[in-house]
Amino acid sequence: MDQDQARARLATAVAEARTGLAEGGIPIGAALYGADGTLLGRGRNRRVQDGDPSMHAETAAFRAAGRQRTYRGTTMVTTLSPCWYCSGLVRQFGISRVVIGEATTFYGGQDWLAEHGVEIVLLDDPECVDLMRTFIHDNPALWNEDIGE
Amino acid sequence: MDQDQARARLATAVAEARTGLAEGGIPIGAALYGADGTLLGRGRNRRVQDGDPSMHAETAAFRAAGRQRTYRGTTMVTTLSPCWYCSGLVRQFGISRVVIGEATTFYGGQDWLAEHGVEIVLLDDPECVDLMRTFIHDNPALWNEDIGE
Repeated sequence: MDQDQARARLATAVAEARTGLAEGGIPIGAALYGADGTLLGRGRNRRVQDGDPSMHAETAAFRAAGRQRTYRGTTMVTTLSPCWYCSGLVRQFGISRVVIGEATTFYGGQDWLAEHGVEIVLLDDPECVDLMRTFIHDNPALWNEDIGE
Repeated sequence: MDQDQARARLATAVAEARTGLAEGGIPIGAALYGADGTLLGRGRNRRVQDGDPSMHAETAAFRAAGRQRTYRGTTMVTTLSPCWYCSGLVRQFGISRVVIGEATTFYGGQDWLAEHGVEIVLLDDPECVDLMRTFIHDNPALWNEDIGE
């Protein structure tokens, strides 16, 4: 996937992250795209909004996509490097590609995914970095809770 | 944790799995116990019941437990060896121990978890094996969907 296409898809995830921030939530967004480029599902971290620690952005997007027979060819787009929980999701279900907004403020399981054949597209997007850097600075306890630290 | 204590907790997960089977769902159950032995949350696979592929037994139990400041000392009990998705959950959140009903019909990320310091208690429980063996035999497509194969 080329960077322009990846950036266009990242915009969906960033919009989710911004909605989450406006709700008082953790500003991480994600979207799952089908092999044909169709948007299958989008979502955002819902720890604060729903009191639900299982809804990271990626799992929320995966959930929103509903039941799928296969994830071959799909792309998970996320504003932030996927944690082990979300990396495990990608590996188990055979999601083919992960587009990552940034891996500066948090570095998850992306190398492990690459070792297991997942295509990783890291965009190093300044808007994504700024969203998380500001959030973590202002809400360190909430952020640590979300990553189990 | 000794085997008797682990077996007593496994009963909660088996009850969830049997409820799921009675609902027409995939018969995998789980429960999350606190460091002091309190039951924090219990759940079952809800792919069929809710059309929700994100709710594996372990993620359902984790969700039911709500927000926790730490998972240090907690035990995830599951009727079946945890897939990569659920193994990632355990690693990310620092769940200390996983009690596994069986790893005969499916072998997930338990060795990876052990390498990363998670205590694994494998019970090799015949009732859990029988539940899954029968289910997979009768519903191979549904089972493959649930593990992304």
